[in-house]
Amino acid sequence: MNTLNSIGYPIYFNDTLSELVKFIEKGNYSRFFVLTDENTAKHCLPALREKIDHLDNFDIIEINAGEESKNIDFCVGVWKMLIDFSADRQSLLINLGGGVISDLGGFAASTYKRGIDFVNVPTTLLSQVDASVGGKTGIDMDNIKNIIGTFTQPKAVFIEHAFLQTLPSRQILSGLAEMLKHGLIADMAYWNSLKNSELKNPSADLIYRSVEIKNKVVIEDPHEKGIRKSLNFGHTIGHAVETYSLVNDENPLTHGEAIAIGMICEARLSNIKLGLTNAELTEINDVIGNLYPKYVIAESCYKELYSIMQKDKKNQSGKINCTLLTHIGQCRIDNICTEDELCESLRYYSTL
Amino acid sequence: MNTLNSIGYPIYFNDTLSELVKFIEKGNYSRFFVLTDENTAKHCLPALREKIDHLDNFDIIEINAGEESKNIDFCVGVWKMLIDFSADRQSLLINLGGGVISDLGGFAASTYKRGIDFVNVPTTLLSQVDASVGGKTGIDMDNIKNIIGTFTQPKAVFIEHAFLQTLPSRQILSGLAEMLKHGLIADMAYWNSLKNSELKNPSADLIYRSVEIKNKVVIEDPHEKGIRKSLNFGHTIGHAVETYSLVNDENPLTHGEAIAIGMICEARLSNIKLGLTNAELTEINDVIGNLYPKYVIAESCYKELYSIMQKDKKNQSGKINCTLLTHIGQCRIDNICTEDELCESLRYYSTL
Repeated sequence: MNTLNSIGYPIYFNDTLSELVKFIEKGNYSRFFVLTDENTAKHCLPALREKIDHLDNFDIIEINAGEESKNIDFCVGVWKMLIDFSADRQSLLINLGGGVISDLGGFAASTYKRGIDFVNVPTTLLSQVDASVGGKTGIDMDNIKNIIGTFTQPKAVFIEHAFLQTLPSRQILSGLAEMLKHGLIADMAYWNSLKNSELKNPSADLIYRSVEIKNKVVIEDPHEKGIRKSLNFGHTIGHAVETYSLVNDENPLTHGEAIAIGMICEARLSNIKLGLTNAELTEINDVIGNLYPKYVIAESCYKELYSIMQKDKKNQSGKINCTLLTHIGQCRIDNICTEDELCESLRYYSTL
Repeated sequence: MNTLNSIGYPIYFNDTLSELVKFIEKGNYSRFFVLTDENTAKHCLPALREKIDHLDNFDIIEINAGEESKNIDFCVGVWKMLIDFSADRQSLLINLGGGVISDLGGFAASTYKRGIDFVNVPTTLLSQVDASVGGKTGIDMDNIKNIIGTFTQPKAVFIEHAFLQTLPSRQILSGLAEMLKHGLIADMAYWNSLKNSELKNPSADLIYRSVEIKNKVVIEDPHEKGIRKSLNFGHTIGHAVETYSLVNDENPLTHGEAIAIGMICEARLSNIKLGLTNAELTEINDVIGNLYPKYVIAESCYKELYSIMQKDKKNQSGKINCTLLTHIGQCRIDNICTEDELCESLRYYSTL
């Protein structure tokens, strides 16, 4: 696997922890900080420590694991730690964790002293194929995901396949939803190879291809003015379902589980509005339905879901904008969907 | 006075409120928000309202006046107001106020939904000649000024001279310190014309020249990697004195009062380290001494001031970096000053 070039930074796939040490050593940083949560502190930090223990000037900042930490209070906590450690502008923040760590750590770094360098070492499948690449940082507020954030590129990304060994299978499935999405929006051959793979343990090659697809889109449109919106397939409805579940369920859906639902609903919208064939729709439903548990959404909740969608930062003037599929492997951005259409797609999902 | 061009945005000086309305009308904004404090709500908003009342879709967000508001709690308040008003990415934030409003509003806008447009309508002399131009946004934390922020340019700046009429003279003097600084670092002729002017009520032409000087420096070096540091003359010590006073005094120094002290101390350092002549040093002391009240700093506080300087984001690895004058109208950046030198300059100030 080659190193990929993103917007001014490399994405490493081979011998990544050694690459990280090389990066630090040549970077002329005054000091560096590793942001972890209790999971990555246990499962991933030891491997990193082995490589960096000979270096001076590093400190660990640990936050609680989970989406609940991705808020302004934890962000203030990270800022205050950086202040307490007298982190100067030549400091480096290493985000060692999943999307919460890279989103929150990236936001904290991009705003501390008006911006210090950060790198991402994604440790979940989801963050490896999604959050760690693309330069979006953010935190949640008032139950709206990533409502506060910046577009700031990391200085490098290190994708270590070995870290996935420690993940529970539900976390693997969460990342897999984004990989399936990459196939659906951009590459039928990749979709087909995913279909026929052992998906409970995706190979490094499959992950590489996913990152490659995402990276290509991001390079073309870093600030999401156009083609980058293609990555939102499944996310208009999916994000709303995720937010809804986060607020209402004791054991909320993972991101991928919610996006899986969103992809089925939005495939149905594609079927109605853009002529995605019935056969393609069925194929998508079968693949996704075999991987993810069914989630019951009562019709009485549709209003609330719709109101969450209206607050999504991708939508303007209250109109709901979806990325839909014309075929498996091809998509079209900027499809305005009405409340009726969106509700019908949720109703369709519930009949499967 | 001509319109100045900054980094991708115009700075208007003539008929500014009409220019602002034109800007809004051609901007295709879904809606807009005016950020004010209770002072600008009273003294400046009515004039603006007269111009925009025929427009739909605007709301007012008001915060408390004063540096104490420039913190994360008020910033969260602004973000939540934007969320409550369903502000989308096509929204515009109009910062109507002094530096607190433009710094905090700029930060809130640059991070809300990963960035919405904002413009600055500075209403104090200080913000007209300093904060509103240059693309620095920020809030304070743990008594460190602007420790959290971004580099984000406004879409336009509107400098309305009439707004200065309502300012108390202490606020005028606060802005004047930055104007004097512009002369000292870059333009002896301007310094001389300031010396000989009625400074309690600076003319629009003098303000224009100050903005012109600052703008030229900022355009050359937006991210403060080099020449922009020249604007820090007086600020290494001045910021520390300002922070110290904010924490310890019932009626704290204004920014300009603190910078006036900083300029005298740093002129003394220039005299010792870079050969600024005694005559020039005396001239600077006289001009500044005639304008600003004396402030007593006990020798026992120097340690605390030094420790505040070490936390300043401009300093690296605990070393204190000053911009100093070679002559009136000329400066040199990146002069490392020792604790002894800094204390001696504070001692010098106390003997004047």
